[in-house]
Amino acid sequence: MVVIGAGFGGLACTRRLAGAPVDVVLVDRHNYHLFTPLLYQVASALLNPSEVAIPVRSILGQSGARFRMADVTGIDPERRLVLTRDGPIAYDWLVIAVGSQTAYFGKDGVRRSSFGVKVLPDALALRNRILGQLEAASRMGDPVARRRALTFVVVGGGPTGVEYAGALVELFRLVVGRDFPDLAPEELEVTLVEMGDRLLAEFPVALSEYARRRLERLGVNVRTGTAVEEYGDGGRVRLRGGAAIETDTLIWAAGVRPTRLAETVPFARARSGRLEIDEFLRVRGEKRVFAIGDVAQVEQDGRPLPQMAPPAMQAGRQVADNILRALRGEAMVPFRYRDKGIMAVIGRNAGVARIGGLDLKGFVGWAGWLFVHLYYLIGFRNRLAVLARWAWYYLLYDRPIRIIARARVPDGATPIPPDDG
Amino acid sequence: MVVIGAGFGGLACTRRLAGAPVDVVLVDRHNYHLFTPLLYQVASALLNPSEVAIPVRSILGQSGARFRMADVTGIDPERRLVLTRDGPIAYDWLVIAVGSQTAYFGKDGVRRSSFGVKVLPDALALRNRILGQLEAASRMGDPVARRRALTFVVVGGGPTGVEYAGALVELFRLVVGRDFPDLAPEELEVTLVEMGDRLLAEFPVALSEYARRRLERLGVNVRTGTAVEEYGDGGRVRLRGGAAIETDTLIWAAGVRPTRLAETVPFARARSGRLEIDEFLRVRGEKRVFAIGDVAQVEQDGRPLPQMAPPAMQAGRQVADNILRALRGEAMVPFRYRDKGIMAVIGRNAGVARIGGLDLKGFVGWAGWLFVHLYYLIGFRNRLAVLARWAWYYLLYDRPIRIIARARVPDGATPIPPDDG
Repeated sequence: MVVIGAGFGGLACTRRLAGAPVDVVLVDRHNYHLFTPLLYQVASALLNPSEVAIPVRSILGQSGARFRMADVTGIDPERRLVLTRDGPIAYDWLVIAVGSQTAYFGKDGVRRSSFGVKVLPDALALRNRILGQLEAASRMGDPVARRRALTFVVVGGGPTGVEYAGALVELFRLVVGRDFPDLAPEELEVTLVEMGDRLLAEFPVALSEYARRRLERLGVNVRTGTAVEEYGDGGRVRLRGGAAIETDTLIWAAGVRPTRLAETVPFARARSGRLEIDEFLRVRGEKRVFAIGDVAQVEQDGRPLPQMAPPAMQAGRQVADNILRALRGEAMVPFRYRDKGIMAVIGRNAGVARIGGLDLKGFVGWAGWLFVHLYYLIGFRNRLAVLARWAWYYLLYDRPIRIIARARVPDGATPIPPDDG
Repeated sequence: MVVIGAGFGGLACTRRLAGAPVDVVLVDRHNYHLFTPLLYQVASALLNPSEVAIPVRSILGQSGARFRMADVTGIDPERRLVLTRDGPIAYDWLVIAVGSQTAYFGKDGVRRSSFGVKVLPDALALRNRILGQLEAASRMGDPVARRRALTFVVVGGGPTGVEYAGALVELFRLVVGRDFPDLAPEELEVTLVEMGDRLLAEFPVALSEYARRRLERLGVNVRTGTAVEEYGDGGRVRLRGGAAIETDTLIWAAGVRPTRLAETVPFARARSGRLEIDEFLRVRGEKRVFAIGDVAQVEQDGRPLPQMAPPAMQAGRQVADNILRALRGEAMVPFRYRDKGIMAVIGRNAGVARIGGLDLKGFVGWAGWLFVHLYYLIGFRNRLAVLARWAWYYLLYDRPIRIIARARVPDGATPIPPDDG
């Protein structure tokens, strides 16, 4: 059996299958599993890439599951083949867990020129960019160019946007005082733009308002009820209604859509572009093809499930169990998501969480967030490393990974796999 | 006064100057100081980039020295200006410490298609490449392509080539057994090519021979007295005499030459391309312009000084002292390098060192190497982090940073500074 995608869903499914005497191959275009909830901390110079990107082969270890790094280009259900750039892989059972990519809603200027926090190459580019802008601005005389260089616009008031905006002002507060004598703290501006009328729309209103107050106290300029129309090459964010913000750096965290692969497979799609599935998470019309996580349109009690790690992981494990049941001749069990809650942090000492019927905020919400994320991070070494970094950051007010670093690829070298989305 | 280059020499000079009540600006194209002796450990998946690349601004801190990230394009000694892409910087005293870059000796195919271990973008690209080749080979059927993918040729028998070849076989021994069931250990081949008749030519013959025996015992195919003529796009390393090695991955550590800037400045150059200097390390004919480190041709007792950190650091401090002496109206003191010795490691538990008249090898050489490198690494946090990684590697036989990761740059974004050598 084949699982496509080493995200939360695909990995949970593979690990569960690996416990049984079956042959399972996990396919991903990257050689690592990405712990996306902490990715914004890479993009804000707190964590190393290796602390949130864990090699799939290390995770699978001697479990019996195999890994194949390959770029999946299509699925041929007639011949039961997963098509990749390096040839086909045959399957008897297939789990599609290819996740989502950033949605630009037809805004081409945004797509071409914005930065993101969705995949590791994005986060590294964003870290390089933020630090590069501080360096560039510190040697600029022209006040207009300087202001544009020091204005950062984050679009999207969900957890990613909120967490990143908070991390960004903390980074600036730290480095501007300590490292950049040529910059004044009041020159830096972080604006968080959200189309809806409040931040963290999935949370209760009181928690949304708390998050907004915290961000504003940190110095973030929060603009709700404001939609971005387009981003021009000159560095102008046009807002609905005619207003504009001049910035060199637009960070886009405004939405996701299923990855390209979902558009090319010959299966039924919902209006969202996500694959339609039955109560066992089987792709419509297929007996042995499942879809889980962000790529699947799972409705429960009349609402789509949130696109987060817990539903994907639960679905992954359940699909594995159902496949094993079917192999034993037993009936499959319908999927039902047990709500694990939602949470977000807003800078140091402040967080919001809704777990069960319980609303948490402030220090308790923050500490809960830390604990949960550390708990779900894979690998003892990574937990230790991240804990050490958090302690360092907390006690010394430091975000240490402040290097502008990229890999160089020799012109003439044979291509290595793509690192986009 | 202006110091160009935040390597070992420029940084030592700047820190010494910063202690005096003078205005000093350090200029570098990167925002970090690179601890190059450990760079090969980044390229072999043991260390994180942030552990060997330390932000210059963090190092300078509140010392009083300023930093400017800029790409220096020339020097105008008439008008006393350092020219950069972002405008000129005026100097009264100038220290040129721009180091060296990889020398390809006119071999264009090597320049275009080889990998290096000289700068951070090189090391990251090389790590990505090595891991990418293992992934690619594990899904290859064609035995010829597979063999070429799993053959790695390191050129250059100096400390960098020796240390990297040793690290590479250790990485392979580790991951092939544990992570790649589809690869057999005997399929991987690491060849170290050296033009001269022995490795580590700067060391006594007995230590060279020890290093060779150790490498061969680790499984490295050592070929001394073998010169590389050219590297073709088809993946063929042509050797002098007609032999050839087929490989997708050529790692070039065969020599350095002064950086481009040395060619453009209107100062006298030695046959090596390095700047000619007087006994105070002043560029010939200039009273207030100094050159230190790899870019300066410093002879002592009839031999050029080795291109390593210790001579550069000593020169940097002495130039700073001489400038301060001149400002006080005192006479300058001629430069004389106090030999700190040379050392190299060859995998786990084995090293060679020549310190004073003392030759060390084996475990003692290895332990000495660890201690010295940890001691000279800048910053408590980095020492702690590197020590923790070394302990992890030593006790668990693990090289944990096995991720293939690059930064993505949006098409339409305004350019950020170049990351080449």
